Amino acid sequence: MADDALIVFTPSGRRGRFQKGTTVLQAARQLGVDVDSVCGGRGLCGRCQCTVQQGRFAKHGIASAPDHVSPWNEVETEYNARARRRPIADGRRLSCQAEILDDVVVDIPADSQVHKQVVRKRAEVRDIVLDPAMRLHYVEVEQPDMHKPSGDLERLKAALAEQWDLHDIAAADLRTIQNLQKALRQGDWKVTVAVHRSERVTAIWPGFHDRAYGLAVDVGSTTIAAHLCDLQSGEVLASNGVMNPQIRFGEDLMSRVSYAMMNPGGDQEMTAAVRQALNELVRDTAAEAGIAVAEILNATFVGNPIMHHLLLGIDPTELGGAPFALATNSGVTLWAQEMELDIHPDGRIYVLPCIAGHVGADTAGVVLSESPHLSEDTVLVVDVGTNAEILLGNKHRLLAASSPTGPAFEGAQISGGQRAANGAIERVRIDPETLEPRFKVIGCDLWSNEEGFAKAVRRVGVTGICGSGIIEALAEMYLAGIIATDGTIDGALAARSGRIERDGRTWSYLLHAGEPEIRVSQNDVRAIQLAKAALYAGARLLMDKLEIDQVDRVVLAGAFGSHIDVKYAMILGLIPDCDLAKVSSAGNAAGTGARIALLNQKARDEIERVVRQIEKVETAVEPRFQAHFVEAMGFPHTTAPYPRLRQAVALPDAKKAQPPEGGEDRAARRRRRARAQQGAEE
Amino acid sequence: MADDALIVFTPSGRRGRFQKGTTVLQAARQLGVDVDSVCGGRGLCGRCQCTVQQGRFAKHGIASAPDHVSPWNEVETEYNARARRRPIADGRRLSCQAEILDDVVVDIPADSQVHKQVVRKRAEVRDIVLDPAMRLHYVEVEQPDMHKPSGDLERLKAALAEQWDLHDIAAADLRTIQNLQKALRQGDWKVTVAVHRSERVTAIWPGFHDRAYGLAVDVGSTTIAAHLCDLQSGEVLASNGVMNPQIRFGEDLMSRVSYAMMNPGGDQEMTAAVRQALNELVRDTAAEAGIAVAEILNATFVGNPIMHHLLLGIDPTELGGAPFALATNSGVTLWAQEMELDIHPDGRIYVLPCIAGHVGADTAGVVLSESPHLSEDTVLVVDVGTNAEILLGNKHRLLAASSPTGPAFEGAQISGGQRAANGAIERVRIDPETLEPRFKVIGCDLWSNEEGFAKAVRRVGVTGICGSGIIEALAEMYLAGIIATDGTIDGALAARSGRIERDGRTWSYLLHAGEPEIRVSQNDVRAIQLAKAALYAGARLLMDKLEIDQVDRVVLAGAFGSHIDVKYAMILGLIPDCDLAKVSSAGNAAGTGARIALLNQKARDEIERVVRQIEKVETAVEPRFQAHFVEAMGFPHTTAPYPRLRQAVALPDAKKAQPPEGGEDRAARRRRRARAQQGAEE
Repeated sequence: MADDALIVFTPSGRRGRFQKGTTVLQAARQLGVDVDSVCGGRGLCGRCQCTVQQGRFAKHGIASAPDHVSPWNEVETEYNARARRRPIADGRRLSCQAEILDDVVVDIPADSQVHKQVVRKRAEVRDIVLDPAMRLHYVEVEQPDMHKPSGDLERLKAALAEQWDLHDIAAADLRTIQNLQKALRQGDWKVTVAVHRSERVTAIWPGFHDRAYGLAVDVGSTTIAAHLCDLQSGEVLASNGVMNPQIRFGEDLMSRVSYAMMNPGGDQEMTAAVRQALNELVRDTAAEAGIAVAEILNATFVGNPIMHHLLLGIDPTELGGAPFALATNSGVTLWAQEMELDIHPDGRIYVLPCIAGHVGADTAGVVLSESPHLSEDTVLVVDVGTNAEILLGNKHRLLAASSPTGPAFEGAQISGGQRAANGAIERVRIDPETLEPRFKVIGCDLWSNEEGFAKAVRRVGVTGICGSGIIEALAEMYLAGIIATDGTIDGALAARSGRIERDGRTWSYLLHAGEPEIRVSQNDVRAIQLAKAALYAGARLLMDKLEIDQVDRVVLAGAFGSHIDVKYAMILGLIPDCDLAKVSSAGNAAGTGARIALLNQKARDEIERVVRQIEKVETAVEPRFQAHFVEAMGFPHTTAPYPRLRQAVALPDAKKAQPPEGGEDRAARRRRRARAQQGAEE
Repeated sequence: MADDALIVFTPSGRRGRFQKGTTVLQAARQLGVDVDSVCGGRGLCGRCQCTVQQGRFAKHGIASAPDHVSPWNEVETEYNARARRRPIADGRRLSCQAEILDDVVVDIPADSQVHKQVVRKRAEVRDIVLDPAMRLHYVEVEQPDMHKPSGDLERLKAALAEQWDLHDIAAADLRTIQNLQKALRQGDWKVTVAVHRSERVTAIWPGFHDRAYGLAVDVGSTTIAAHLCDLQSGEVLASNGVMNPQIRFGEDLMSRVSYAMMNPGGDQEMTAAVRQALNELVRDTAAEAGIAVAEILNATFVGNPIMHHLLLGIDPTELGGAPFALATNSGVTLWAQEMELDIHPDGRIYVLPCIAGHVGADTAGVVLSESPHLSEDTVLVVDVGTNAEILLGNKHRLLAASSPTGPAFEGAQISGGQRAANGAIERVRIDPETLEPRFKVIGCDLWSNEEGFAKAVRRVGVTGICGSGIIEALAEMYLAGIIATDGTIDGALAARSGRIERDGRTWSYLLHAGEPEIRVSQNDVRAIQLAKAALYAGARLLMDKLEIDQVDRVVLAGAFGSHIDVKYAMILGLIPDCDLAKVSSAGNAAGTGARIALLNQKARDEIERVVRQIEKVETAVEPRFQAHFVEAMGFPHTTAPYPRLRQAVALPDAKKAQPPEGGEDRAARRRRRARAQQGAEE
């Protein structure tokens, strides 16, 4: 009988012969098979579970020798008796306990891999490979010996090198050095340490410790959103959002910069405000997940350049005017204390890099999430907020720009506009024959023409129209012929429908006759035209730079992008012509990017590298931007033909709308209604 | 006429041909000649002054062309008009302004070299090569360009790489990033930055800034001593000392460890106490030198292991008992804030490494200062305090140990003992014929037998005897035959001198009959015998390890070592036999080591390396230590012959002292005197 036996691992296919008695974990390590372990093979962490495929094996102490691996042992029994979080699943073994006795095939399930994939819901994007910057390692440290004096820290480092191949640990945080001796002795020379980027010991616990959490935060100008993740599984344990309290210093970004410019110390006030809100968010989110804030060891942040600077305590004044110089366009790694973030006192923060003065760390997050820099085909990624950040390119070349869309897409500057919240109209359909609308509001599942709507909507009311609602309303008005190609509301239709009303020298369309009355005015159409023309012009400018006339794919990122029907976005010409099947929504891609940077340290290096390679285009100084902007005012575009869109959707012919004449004037109608209401009340 | 000219630099001898019009500084840099510059050749710092040896040259604007270098120019005139600290010396030029026009010899004086030598007073030790961990660099930064957006920090880094060859700057401190944009704009894109270890930008000033200071601190258990240095010249600007306030928690080290063990939070109290004293010391020393504390950018610390741990906020309990485990035996680099040290808020601290549980960072400082690891001959270095730290070896092998001498050498446990302070007897001579003593006290220049002594000494009094005094007293008593080889005071001599008095069952020697009466008792002799035997045994143990019977050189470090006459130390057998000419005092070598680590960053790497290589010997677990200790009780030694000492000094023959009989009993004498005094008062 041979001394050694063959082991074959699935799914990796790696194989090798080992001395009998070798554990499956040892064999896996030698073959470079990815098997997770925090305890280093001591039967404590339960992370190395495997399934022995060939070779019957004993379980729960009932041996059936001779077998291909050693029988279930006491360590496994004890582990299962203790384990609350990760018991050994039926049919599995601990790789560190099962010894190879004969030829065998062993499967390492996905959840037992160190670099496990955190699967994302969307098929077109990369899964996240789990490889967090902050990792826990359980080590057994040699005891001090008077005959060979050495520091406890140095023996800990030697143990980390020997047991975990961590050879580049330069130092430990002072607090860890202060806690080291007690932890080692309390843990009987067994401790768990947190190691940041394989370089620095940042925390220590006596004995085996298995809890490490991280926070990925998207600091938006309106809301701050955080995901609390288990750093060892990649799982999101809780997600939470709060309003950005900086709003009291200015609704939009530029008014916050103005506040900093006009008020000495104003930037510091805003920094203090956002940090305080962050700490409340951290506390609430940790409480929701049932963990202590001190168990959060790492946090990542994205945000637009002004949010980024204010978060870091940098006066954003320079971002308020040309040449829009960033203080830094590198990622910033900090101690949590430096940003006054109440997580573990030696927790680390990573703030993703900004790309340019108008293209922030949020866009860097979008890049990580959507990976245009790895794409074979040429993809256009637009993240619409107050500004639209635009990425265009592929794995060979990637460009970025920001377009000044203004806040119209967020419902601001629109007569009945409001934020996407309960009561806001978010879906609109218009019958092209009758010109009658139906709509849906947030917080109510029924369409306005469905039975029971009046009752169902009572709870939330119909309070206004949000960004996605106005896009649909305009697109449907255009498809119904109410709006002409040039954006003019056609007053001639007042003859066909009372919803078309005169409004001074222009016309408007009455969407909802309740209180408040919600209508689409000519000014609303113009506001959206300006915003969408800016967005399109930015994208078109990048296409010019790349010398292409069409893009292969379009991704709409951000809340706006995830709420609108991409078809309507293209009908209005927010984005260039593209096969509709190739246009998708990415949701909060910036926040996802923060989560990727939290869970995968190499993603940090990757984004720093990509950010340097991205070609930044400043729309403000590009002469062609203005020309593209003017050309893009029409629906879907004044000159571009949109053939691929036309294949999917029948667009109205270009026609001139009639100047307003006849029909009831809006002001007159309001007076009449007021009188009628008065009458009713009397 | 040739386009180029030859330049020869002295003292380096480097030479090369350069295009005419090349500045002397440019030529020096290309030839690798060491010329200092903070401003990078812009005529601002005045550090690159040179002397043009051949080729008459114009000065103060009066040109005498054709000449070998370009004439004195406006930049130099302006510089001299502005310069307060470093005007261009007569006959000198700025290397950055003088252009080579013809063959020329240029001398770079020592004070114009970057790596200038800071000359130490003692011939046998290395000079310090100036190469501080914290350096200032003046840079001109490219302005932001909207067409190629990049962060201000990244353009600063590019400028440092280009103008200063600093290619490894990974990051900047957050405060620097926060101050960056204003500094760049205030300084019109010219700033000075402080760079730590060529790796990290830690401070920024608009325009040219030329002030950078550092602090080297020796934290002793009794006193804390600090030297404030100019980091750019190496010069010591002020030196200061304060008592270590931890004394209130325990006079000696072990009682402080006990305090930490017995009182929860006791270690933190002691940490807070020493840090508070340090901050007062920093303030006073900075004020004395006329600088602001925020101008101190770097600080280095040495101290014994317990002082080291308490300084860093590490509970020293483990150092109180076997196996005497250090928390760390590496150097520790920190932000000043982490140690609550009030210097520049982003100043850096470097704490030298401890060597073993009883051999601290102070000894690491001694190693840097005395460099036994570079010595060709075998050197014994002893640093005597409450413990004696002993180093033995040469460039091939270096050993270290600590011997438990106890505090006798510091005047403690001695009947008339006191610290080395005003009024303490520090020198003693005894006439071998009459057995009459004469002495000197600290604070009085006259010997006690000189005319006018009584009056001169009145200001300070004669209050006791310090460590060096007791060593001299004992050695002189031994040479005069009052003490026998075995340490017994010879009662038979009471017949010859009234100074030999009976003291119970032993004898004593009256050194000074004033108030207080100062005498050397048999117990005093025993205390010193125990201390010196421990010291000798430690040294001897290391000699055993090194398999040598004699050492080539002996260095006595520390305050004690610098106050005693090395001859007496050897007569009493504190140190092994050695050619007296090869025994020297090093003064506060530990503090000098801190200063070296402050002024030369490579010394930090050097000491970390050497500390790892030093063989640590724990005297407590060495069986031979006890045997060596017992053998070393005699003067100079019970068995070792001390032939080299005997060549220089005639030692008394070994003889047995008489048991006490006859002579006046000490107690009886005291009674008689008391009666006499009473009588006088009546």
